[in-house]
Amino acid sequence: MLSVCAMYAQKPTDYVNPFIGTEGMGHTFPGACAPFGIVQLSPDNDTIPHNVGGKYQPRVYEYCAGYQHGDSTIVGFSHTHFSGTGHSDLGDILVMPGTGAIQLNPGTATDPDSGYRSRFSHDSEKASPGYYEVTLSDYGIRAQMTASQRVGVHRYTFPQGSDGHVVIDLQHGIYNYDGKTLWAEMRVENDTLITGYRITNGWARTNYTYFAISLSQPIIEYGYTDRQKTDYKGGWGKFPQFHNFPEMAGRKLVAWFRFDTAKEPVVEMKVALSATSTEGALLNLRAEAAGKSFEQICKGTENAWNAELETIQVEGTEDQKAMFYTSYYHTMINPSVYMDVDGSYRGLDRNIHKAEGFTNYTVFSLWDTYRAEHPFLALMKPQQARDMAISMIRHQQQSVHGLLPVWSHMGNDNWCMSGYHATSVLADAITKGLDIDKEEALKAMIKTSNVEYYAGLGEYIQLGYVPLDKTATAASNTLEYSYDDWTIYHTALLAGDTKTADTYRKRAMYYSNIYDTELGFARPKYTDGSFKKDFDVRQTYGEGFIEGNSWNFSFHVPQDINGLMKLMGGDKKFIADMDELFGMDLDPKYYEDNEDITAECLIGGYVHGNEPSHHIPYLYAWTSQPWKTQYWLREVMNSKYLNHIRGLGGNDDCGQMSAWYIFTAMGFYPVCPGTDQYVFGAPYLPYMKISLPNGKTLEIKAPAVSDTNRYVKEVRLNGKPYGKMYITHDDILAGGTLEYIMSAKPNKKRGLAASDKPYSLSE
Amino acid sequence: MLSVCAMYAQKPTDYVNPFIGTEGMGHTFPGACAPFGIVQLSPDNDTIPHNVGGKYQPRVYEYCAGYQHGDSTIVGFSHTHFSGTGHSDLGDILVMPGTGAIQLNPGTATDPDSGYRSRFSHDSEKASPGYYEVTLSDYGIRAQMTASQRVGVHRYTFPQGSDGHVVIDLQHGIYNYDGKTLWAEMRVENDTLITGYRITNGWARTNYTYFAISLSQPIIEYGYTDRQKTDYKGGWGKFPQFHNFPEMAGRKLVAWFRFDTAKEPVVEMKVALSATSTEGALLNLRAEAAGKSFEQICKGTENAWNAELETIQVEGTEDQKAMFYTSYYHTMINPSVYMDVDGSYRGLDRNIHKAEGFTNYTVFSLWDTYRAEHPFLALMKPQQARDMAISMIRHQQQSVHGLLPVWSHMGNDNWCMSGYHATSVLADAITKGLDIDKEEALKAMIKTSNVEYYAGLGEYIQLGYVPLDKTATAASNTLEYSYDDWTIYHTALLAGDTKTADTYRKRAMYYSNIYDTELGFARPKYTDGSFKKDFDVRQTYGEGFIEGNSWNFSFHVPQDINGLMKLMGGDKKFIADMDELFGMDLDPKYYEDNEDITAECLIGGYVHGNEPSHHIPYLYAWTSQPWKTQYWLREVMNSKYLNHIRGLGGNDDCGQMSAWYIFTAMGFYPVCPGTDQYVFGAPYLPYMKISLPNGKTLEIKAPAVSDTNRYVKEVRLNGKPYGKMYITHDDILAGGTLEYIMSAKPNKKRGLAASDKPYSLSE
Repeated sequence: MLSVCAMYAQKPTDYVNPFIGTEGMGHTFPGACAPFGIVQLSPDNDTIPHNVGGKYQPRVYEYCAGYQHGDSTIVGFSHTHFSGTGHSDLGDILVMPGTGAIQLNPGTATDPDSGYRSRFSHDSEKASPGYYEVTLSDYGIRAQMTASQRVGVHRYTFPQGSDGHVVIDLQHGIYNYDGKTLWAEMRVENDTLITGYRITNGWARTNYTYFAISLSQPIIEYGYTDRQKTDYKGGWGKFPQFHNFPEMAGRKLVAWFRFDTAKEPVVEMKVALSATSTEGALLNLRAEAAGKSFEQICKGTENAWNAELETIQVEGTEDQKAMFYTSYYHTMINPSVYMDVDGSYRGLDRNIHKAEGFTNYTVFSLWDTYRAEHPFLALMKPQQARDMAISMIRHQQQSVHGLLPVWSHMGNDNWCMSGYHATSVLADAITKGLDIDKEEALKAMIKTSNVEYYAGLGEYIQLGYVPLDKTATAASNTLEYSYDDWTIYHTALLAGDTKTADTYRKRAMYYSNIYDTELGFARPKYTDGSFKKDFDVRQTYGEGFIEGNSWNFSFHVPQDINGLMKLMGGDKKFIADMDELFGMDLDPKYYEDNEDITAECLIGGYVHGNEPSHHIPYLYAWTSQPWKTQYWLREVMNSKYLNHIRGLGGNDDCGQMSAWYIFTAMGFYPVCPGTDQYVFGAPYLPYMKISLPNGKTLEIKAPAVSDTNRYVKEVRLNGKPYGKMYITHDDILAGGTLEYIMSAKPNKKRGLAASDKPYSLSE
Repeated sequence: MLSVCAMYAQKPTDYVNPFIGTEGMGHTFPGACAPFGIVQLSPDNDTIPHNVGGKYQPRVYEYCAGYQHGDSTIVGFSHTHFSGTGHSDLGDILVMPGTGAIQLNPGTATDPDSGYRSRFSHDSEKASPGYYEVTLSDYGIRAQMTASQRVGVHRYTFPQGSDGHVVIDLQHGIYNYDGKTLWAEMRVENDTLITGYRITNGWARTNYTYFAISLSQPIIEYGYTDRQKTDYKGGWGKFPQFHNFPEMAGRKLVAWFRFDTAKEPVVEMKVALSATSTEGALLNLRAEAAGKSFEQICKGTENAWNAELETIQVEGTEDQKAMFYTSYYHTMINPSVYMDVDGSYRGLDRNIHKAEGFTNYTVFSLWDTYRAEHPFLALMKPQQARDMAISMIRHQQQSVHGLLPVWSHMGNDNWCMSGYHATSVLADAITKGLDIDKEEALKAMIKTSNVEYYAGLGEYIQLGYVPLDKTATAASNTLEYSYDDWTIYHTALLAGDTKTADTYRKRAMYYSNIYDTELGFARPKYTDGSFKKDFDVRQTYGEGFIEGNSWNFSFHVPQDINGLMKLMGGDKKFIADMDELFGMDLDPKYYEDNEDITAECLIGGYVHGNEPSHHIPYLYAWTSQPWKTQYWLREVMNSKYLNHIRGLGGNDDCGQMSAWYIFTAMGFYPVCPGTDQYVFGAPYLPYMKISLPNGKTLEIKAPAVSDTNRYVKEVRLNGKPYGKMYITHDDILAGGTLEYIMSAKPNKKRGLAASDKPYSLSE
């Protein structure tokens, strides 16, 4: 069979290169998925924990997406993956085909023959949105994958005359540790239908993954082993329990299924997932895959991707188009749909809820994605953005803490990173007119911001800052809470609740309590009000900030850049600090032990590969030298986003890096989500045509743009000169033409008037 | 507070002594439960597995009900128990109050101070249906318990001025082993409401127990430990996770909750269970316990018991009444309701099903209970009996094997013992006119009897017997399958399916394939048709029978006693075999290693303490000496049923021993369930008045009965002499008076005519 998904040229999907970011820091996966689909069917490489000095060492970081391009073996194809994260989990329901003697252990990368894994060559790999293909060279099996939102479809073509089988390993996982799988069960319902589930204690503390597998040809023999036998036998001994016995269970369950591949060399498996039940998985299987061929599902998903991607048409080099559409593609992998086709989903309280009037989503890496990913979806995918916001509110309502999601996936919160930035997403969605109940949202935001046992929040409320003696990341927590409080203030204003607005306006200024005005940077304080001594603004470790140094983090006051500038020493000093940030030669000692910050992701001391700095290039807009933004943005675009396996200068972080790319390519960026403003930078591509969700069209023109002509001389909106340093959400939704007149020289006169400056809480 | 449940005299519940059988073999528990309730709230003693030579040894047998009267400590009060079984499980959701320093381990029986357990004195214990009380002497805490069907209610009265707390141990279980609890979670929803669940891999292979706990006074401080820490932390470190943190989880979770008992010494806990979800548990809590006081719930349950028990009024000595009503009580503990108040329950396939038009039940110890317990319920509790039969059919429909329950509990089958005796229960229920879909039942029975991989069934179908080279219990399997097949034959007849009837009539005769007519006993055969050599009919071990020797098991052909008699050598030989069985001096070597057979449960070689022999005393009815039945029944009644903690001569087996007692006390017994006949023995009590479920009344009179006058001279039904050796179900349901004229001498002329003999497949 031809790769059907590769037959249709000149579509946006033809430009998507799923291999971008699969080597190094990108942490993307090359496998098959549908837009916002929960099934992300992708090859896993050497994710297996290693026995280091007798201790089982799970792979926390490098295999977040299950795949590293440098590996030479594939251990199997699992159905759930993160896209671009900095912490790993998932890899649920591993399927691996084989021939000959059945092996039930994965084996090792150094000795692939010791297990079921196989060597492979990248030459045999193909990937496009919704399609992945590879040849498993140890077996001569051609493996093809596609997926709908809830169903992964495998097609294995076995060699002529081979004795083929498939292994399903329910212990396998990404960031696995001994005991991660709490329990698994599997039922062979009939010779072409398998159901089952597993429960894991992973980064999602309690994760229920149910499945239903429909087969294209009958199983002729099967069996299983439980690598960790139970002491409890009951009367099971009266059965041939491990051979052709349809009821399997165990902590470390690995099953095998033989097929008559000599007679029919192709085995197709449709694997539907559900978080509620095998009944839910069967429902999903029937709704999305029953009666459909591999080609139909693959084509359907390719069409779905094109429908999403063709809403933006761009001109540029082939590499630029690849980068653009791959970025757009990456913005629609996570968050992912987390409910059955009938709306049933598993809530934070482990109960089964029905999503009434919305689609429930999961995988919210909010410390990353509140910045650009969610604002981007609010602009281009408002229906999904609205449903994600409601999903967050439901999460809060089901949380025993009353907390909005922090870093949540699969009905759990793993509490990774800091802040309560879901408030930003809600405020932004409300500001941008998405259909969300303001009062309900505000209630969830207020409750969240008052959970006193959450990471120094009680002390923050009491003292006006998080003290360093309470929390190691006290300073960044203070900055993040303060911005989040501004989003509550802003929402309360929109909801007409002035009393709440007053309260949170004060809290939105708490950031100012930790600036050392002599030093001109943020600096953590102790409970007694004294600043930390022996403080190094370049140092990432132990200085009170999370994954960032003070030099970067001090700029994190998106709600009040004017106020911030004063604290940091005024316009000149602020500009000088930014200039130095981009220009400095940062000693590696300041970051070398941090897995999220490498030389690859730096420009001077500016860390594009990690999120806290993402808005910094745009901050020149508030100063007397706005044009400097334009210079540095192109430097970032040219160096941190390459059409190459190692093309991402940091974790894609569930679309945040990619959404940054798209906004920046358009020429503007939501520095302060919650406002209706996008702050101007400089466009990256000569032409872009945006089909807006409201049916209107916005053309963005910058015909002269180039590395030389990187400066914006003038902006014209619908033909008229436009002098403000920002464009509003309504301006964009009105459609028309946004034209950038580019130049090799900066226009140092533009955007200097106070009335042209973007939003700031203080004047 | 007075024990409200003890204040109302002259009710049947006053005669119930829940301590009968709590020492030794009875395996009953003294705790509180409602009729057919799933919550059986009872103290657990030394159920903790012991470390024997470095190996963790769970207690399989002696603590089946969690309690042994000889113990001197109580480890806590758990919510689920078996009544009278021979294998253990459950003990879910252990609650233990304490004062002073909080201990989170149970400690040992030899050193109770090393853990949270407490010494107690039986002097402080009281128990009646729906009520249990004890003083925990180490703490001076008075503990009182009551229960509705789905809610256990604890009342702990702490000493004046004490610093009281409660421990909830989610690792505790009966027949616990290291790792039995797969996972547990708990949420402190607010200061008077806790929810949670645990999943166990026990005798029920995968058992989900959810709970909701409502408290009478607020928690002032709480925390937990996980005895087996997980490697996976996520971002949880930002919380004070083990102290006053409302979201707990772990493999071995033990939580503690402090109360201001100095201010208010009484803490009441309402603990609702569910198999579906915490939402289901909350639903059950609201429906059965919300707004009700301890006294109201206790009184409600006492009333429910009296309503059930007063349907039979008896005369006799105080001990006889205690034995009678305790037996009746024991028939209504298992099976137990297994669904939420809205009908939701967890099926065999782990999906949540809705019980439409029936109440779903669980705990089917069918090898035991098909004999008398289910027939008794079909007679006296037809609504429950019908719903149990439908529950079994649903079980079969959800089973991936298509098997009716064998020994099932909590949505699992543990496959204990042998046969597929649910077919007997269904056949009996249909014969007795219960509202069950015959076709649906028959389909389930046929499917069950053709699962070839089940314990030699394939060979049985092929050869006409289970060969010993296939299965160690080949001979008893053959006998049991053959009877079960008769029940299918009989049901097919009733359903008008003559073709199926023909098939199963043949199979109902397969028992005859394993009788050695020279020896006059059943004897296992090999596949080649040869009998086992070196065969000992007295030997319980290794001779092809399950928990019984050939001498006992050979009589297990209830469907065809006439045919059996011929195979065993005819009337005289048959009588002689039975006489010798009751009279022999059985060498202990024949049973001493079998935990289910002890000297205490024997009469000669007849094993009343185990089920295969239960119908044997009645088999004289088919012979020329029917009167011998009458002699031996009174021997059994007098010696195996005593109003004493050690009063049961064997496991009560979920009511089977007790139902045997009640039937025998009435003077008849369902030797062959599935027929409409009850075979006459001799009455045990002088008077019995039965309020039948159809509203009619049957009086059973035997005014002259005594140990001396143990023989039945004549039977009169509604004043007319009644010569048959059986009474039919319709005769009983018609009500009226059944009078036994008793005598010190047997009437050797009664019941000899062929036309008066009970049912037999062969003439």
